[in-house]
Amino acid sequence: MIELDPASLHPALTDPALTAMNFLNEVASCYPDAVSFAPGRPFEEFWDVAQIPRYLERFCEHLRKDRGMDEAAVVRTLHQYGRTKGVIADIVARHLGADEGITAAPDAVVVTVGCQEAMVLVLRALRATDRDVVLAVDPTYVGLTGAARLVDMPVLPVASGAEGVDREDLARCVAEARAAGLRPRALYVMPDFANPTGLSMPEEGRRALLETAEREDILLLEDNPYGLFCGAAERPPTLKALDTTGRVVYLGSFAKTVLPGARVGYVVADQRVRGSAGIFADELAKIKSMITVNTSPISQAIVAGRLLENDGSLDLANTAERHQYQRNLSQLIDGLGRRLGSVPGVSWNQPRGGFFVVVTVPVAVGDAELEYSGRAHGVLWTPMRHFYGGAGGEHQLRLSCSSLDGDRIEQGLDRLAAFLIEAITSAGGICER
Amino acid sequence: MIELDPASLHPALTDPALTAMNFLNEVASCYPDAVSFAPGRPFEEFWDVAQIPRYLERFCEHLRKDRGMDEAAVVRTLHQYGRTKGVIADIVARHLGADEGITAAPDAVVVTVGCQEAMVLVLRALRATDRDVVLAVDPTYVGLTGAARLVDMPVLPVASGAEGVDREDLARCVAEARAAGLRPRALYVMPDFANPTGLSMPEEGRRALLETAEREDILLLEDNPYGLFCGAAERPPTLKALDTTGRVVYLGSFAKTVLPGARVGYVVADQRVRGSAGIFADELAKIKSMITVNTSPISQAIVAGRLLENDGSLDLANTAERHQYQRNLSQLIDGLGRRLGSVPGVSWNQPRGGFFVVVTVPVAVGDAELEYSGRAHGVLWTPMRHFYGGAGGEHQLRLSCSSLDGDRIEQGLDRLAAFLIEAITSAGGICER
Repeated sequence: MIELDPASLHPALTDPALTAMNFLNEVASCYPDAVSFAPGRPFEEFWDVAQIPRYLERFCEHLRKDRGMDEAAVVRTLHQYGRTKGVIADIVARHLGADEGITAAPDAVVVTVGCQEAMVLVLRALRATDRDVVLAVDPTYVGLTGAARLVDMPVLPVASGAEGVDREDLARCVAEARAAGLRPRALYVMPDFANPTGLSMPEEGRRALLETAEREDILLLEDNPYGLFCGAAERPPTLKALDTTGRVVYLGSFAKTVLPGARVGYVVADQRVRGSAGIFADELAKIKSMITVNTSPISQAIVAGRLLENDGSLDLANTAERHQYQRNLSQLIDGLGRRLGSVPGVSWNQPRGGFFVVVTVPVAVGDAELEYSGRAHGVLWTPMRHFYGGAGGEHQLRLSCSSLDGDRIEQGLDRLAAFLIEAITSAGGICER
Repeated sequence: MIELDPASLHPALTDPALTAMNFLNEVASCYPDAVSFAPGRPFEEFWDVAQIPRYLERFCEHLRKDRGMDEAAVVRTLHQYGRTKGVIADIVARHLGADEGITAAPDAVVVTVGCQEAMVLVLRALRATDRDVVLAVDPTYVGLTGAARLVDMPVLPVASGAEGVDREDLARCVAEARAAGLRPRALYVMPDFANPTGLSMPEEGRRALLETAEREDILLLEDNPYGLFCGAAERPPTLKALDTTGRVVYLGSFAKTVLPGARVGYVVADQRVRGSAGIFADELAKIKSMITVNTSPISQAIVAGRLLENDGSLDLANTAERHQYQRNLSQLIDGLGRRLGSVPGVSWNQPRGGFFVVVTVPVAVGDAELEYSGRAHGVLWTPMRHFYGGAGGEHQLRLSCSSLDGDRIEQGLDRLAAFLIEAITSAGGICER
């Protein structure tokens, strides 16, 4: 039997961005009965098997009534190869208008196999030479780092600051990169309840960031999977809603708002391309045609069915989910306070929405500690270390509250508090026990 | 409004492999009423909208009965994020045993978003440095070329010969590449009814190719979308079924045998990786986790449902389809004979299965001629030129018979004959009219 030499395989395969996910999944599978604050998975209790056929039928009805298709055309739309950019671009555009204040031409939308593919398309397009680099707020979503590794594109970290992006550090980073002969193409940013920090940018900061992007001549890659899961109060507009010059490429996901199993996301890319009749979305579609050909129209139909059932509004569709996540988040933050409020050196942030809270502790909380926490205390979380491009996060852990119910949150917090107090009081040696 | 400089985007975007598809789609959309022998789309008349929910339900029943899942686990399997390698690997492996004589461990299977993603995964893994190249039988499937462009991997053409691959040319090509400091990693080949040539390799040639691969120390990437659509007679074993040393990475597609809209393919990669407990499939899964995360479990369920309805056999499932494609192919070949059999310089091959026939003519048949054919004669086909890495195919066109019924084939052949006879008799100037 032949053996492949690992040194003869792409270097991304030994990069922490790709191996970390594997490690975290392995830990999770070792302790299936642990309470897990680790994954950003959506809440499952609103789902049932009957809804998929119902969504499909709703979309078929739309094809018949609103698009005037006969039965053969309906069958063809769902079963056959289809348009590379997708068959629900108009429905996605309508949702963006209704829920996000974004005016998107359907032709600027490329429906993708989850937001992950959207990131791959954009980074692949922008990595034209070995001078091209992408900037990302540090700590950042590991999916962005992984996509960049696969297109051989360096990721330069920009400080997050207290509001989601440190604009001075951004300008400094761009200048340094240019001085080194590099070409910074874009900043990846999640302005609403960011993964992993939970931070959100105020409106003023968003406007200022758009100005900085204009001045520095870079694109902004705005990723917004959590924006809809906000509190009742004010929600600042998305960067794309404020964008008047085409600086923003908007990345969307239906994983949290419809269901992850459909694997449907999208990108809005309305930038003009010099000397071409088309726009950036057309270039992204060309790349997509050679990665996944097109997004499953059946998956698209499921997403569209849910939107159509709710007058095109994802916000309306997620009323129950939004309340659930808000309750979970409050319970998590309150529960941390009751258990750890008086422990010196332990603190956490208090996002008003989204899935994530970051806890800072006076001891290291890395992979070894996670493994111990699962084994000895039956509770899992994510070491923040994995989200940093350089040093950072050694004393922080990310808690996600999205997939648990109230009882499990309480149980998990009891276990987490026991673990942390043990770790702090036995500083240094916890994993060797 | 900002404008992106096309020179600042990845060079694949102006490569013929990516732009050809766009051109061909545009021609098709300009002449929607033309009879099209162009696309390798499956026949649509066996499909109906009720089958998707039925396949889904069949898979859910399998989860409950055969895997012992409760309802929450069934819902989770279909709706939630899932295993990167897929949730139907065992069902795929069973099909490979039943229909292809391939013994595949389920763990060696990675379910992908169509076969296209499988090609991207394999090429991305094998392109470790700028020395790594892939070989492909010339002319070759444009999806392979496109995937290679996106991972910056050169494709070196190997002559096809009369039997699907010229082994002497392969050895010469490998030696030349090595002499030039390159590292040839694999040969991409479609041994059964190849796209675009329709050629099949005899069993002896397959055994000899495996020996050549062994001697030259390269992998074989075996792509097999059409193998099941063969005549009643003998069908030689797949390369993977003959592979005893792990030389073959097997690429599979359910686009033609279940439905393209599910976007489900897979790769079997059982090669060991030195110094690792895992196999090549595990490395491919790491890459997949950063391209599409996982293949939609709903799409996987549809494919599995069809297989489960047919005792795990795709061959059994496609009884009616196989007869349809055989009828279409015979009708196409017979019809060419009746109309063009006595025209000097016109010839075609006679594959015993698959979707494609190649016609050779004494005049150029490129993009301009295709456009004219659509406009003036209402018939479309694919210029073979698009499938060649270097020169070649200028006087050849590919006809696909898969998506048409008998009447349309006759009508299309009348139009094609009229076009070709006009093109031949007015040699040179047809498109300027």
